[in-house]
Amino acid sequence: MKVLYIFAHPEPKSFNAAMKDTAIAALKDKGHEVKLSDLYAMEFNPVLKASDFTERKNPDIFNAFLEAIKASKTGAFSSDIKEEMEKVKWADLLAFQFPIYFTSMPAIMKGWIDRVLAPGFGFNPITSSAYDTGLLKGKAAMLAFTTGAPKEMYSEGGAHGDIHRHLESITHCVFEYMGMKVLPSFIVYEASAMKQEKGIEELERYKKRISEL
Amino acid sequence: MKVLYIFAHPEPKSFNAAMKDTAIAALKDKGHEVKLSDLYAMEFNPVLKASDFTERKNPDIFNAFLEAIKASKTGAFSSDIKEEMEKVKWADLLAFQFPIYFTSMPAIMKGWIDRVLAPGFGFNPITSSAYDTGLLKGKAAMLAFTTGAPKEMYSEGGAHGDIHRHLESITHCVFEYMGMKVLPSFIVYEASAMKQEKGIEELERYKKRISEL
Repeated sequence: MKVLYIFAHPEPKSFNAAMKDTAIAALKDKGHEVKLSDLYAMEFNPVLKASDFTERKNPDIFNAFLEAIKASKTGAFSSDIKEEMEKVKWADLLAFQFPIYFTSMPAIMKGWIDRVLAPGFGFNPITSSAYDTGLLKGKAAMLAFTTGAPKEMYSEGGAHGDIHRHLESITHCVFEYMGMKVLPSFIVYEASAMKQEKGIEELERYKKRISEL
Repeated sequence: MKVLYIFAHPEPKSFNAAMKDTAIAALKDKGHEVKLSDLYAMEFNPVLKASDFTERKNPDIFNAFLEAIKASKTGAFSSDIKEEMEKVKWADLLAFQFPIYFTSMPAIMKGWIDRVLAPGFGFNPITSSAYDTGLLKGKAAMLAFTTGAPKEMYSEGGAHGDIHRHLESITHCVFEYMGMKVLPSFIVYEASAMKQEKGIEELERYKKRISEL
């Protein structure tokens, strides 16, 4: 299997970085091919803007949707977007790993979605290419993340509510929208308060999960 | 009333920019004071990283949560974060206006939340300051946004599901979490397909809504 591993954490010595290293080693051990998009290390720009397009359909007024639809035919995306699109095309599985910031992805990863999974590339409302006919059909996607808050807070009836429900804006409205199959999320709750022993256990649990993909 | 208007759209000639101008004029007409954070115009950096902190509690391993808790006591946030925090402290109402990118905020605005509404400033798990005791209690917040997709798609039973439910990760898990009162969202559906006449109607509807705040 070909895996694109998209990772967002600013600290190479963090638990999140250890999770990333564990996952990549486990994937390679199983004979999978892996490409890594380490967004902080790449200094990935998450802000969608006019310069994302090397030619403009309308040079006077910037409409990101219309420019992306056109660029998906002409290839007029900026080189950083094109490189990420090539990785997505290559991959069978997109794995996103991140620390939860306010019940969702850090901005640097949300911006990867905003810019790379563009109209015309991941989906196309003009040709009704979405959900069952999404343009990334045949691929799978999964989330792996850490939280600061305990599981109870992120459960139905807890103060925040069910984390899976909050993440449907990604799992349903991005992954399924583009035709991808969604694998169950891997979650480490209360990662910031973890003792070292618990951290080692969680890395083992992640390694096992990844090895079974 | 003191209003902080936080705006994210890359095109000054867009419908979103017209909404922003309409809202600010309507607020001033009613005698409210307004401060604007025009995130694209400011080239706001949405990526939380170690350089957000001018002094480090732990210079060896960057833990954003612990650094923010410390900086909220010492003031060791970078100047761009401090400027936004001062505006938040000043404001009675925080209004966020943006085009929906994949059922949520554009990355540049998600990153404003990630960086500005930091632990120790908006909430504090260590002192159990959240929800009823959130640190921004007494303030109100609202969302105003445009969508590409039609209302049916964003309704219960529609392909994406209820947009209000998807945005609970902001309205509940950010605004209410920090003790703020949430005002009803203002939504313009299918903005990208709008004829000019419909656009003018929607601006009138927004002006009326803002004038009644």
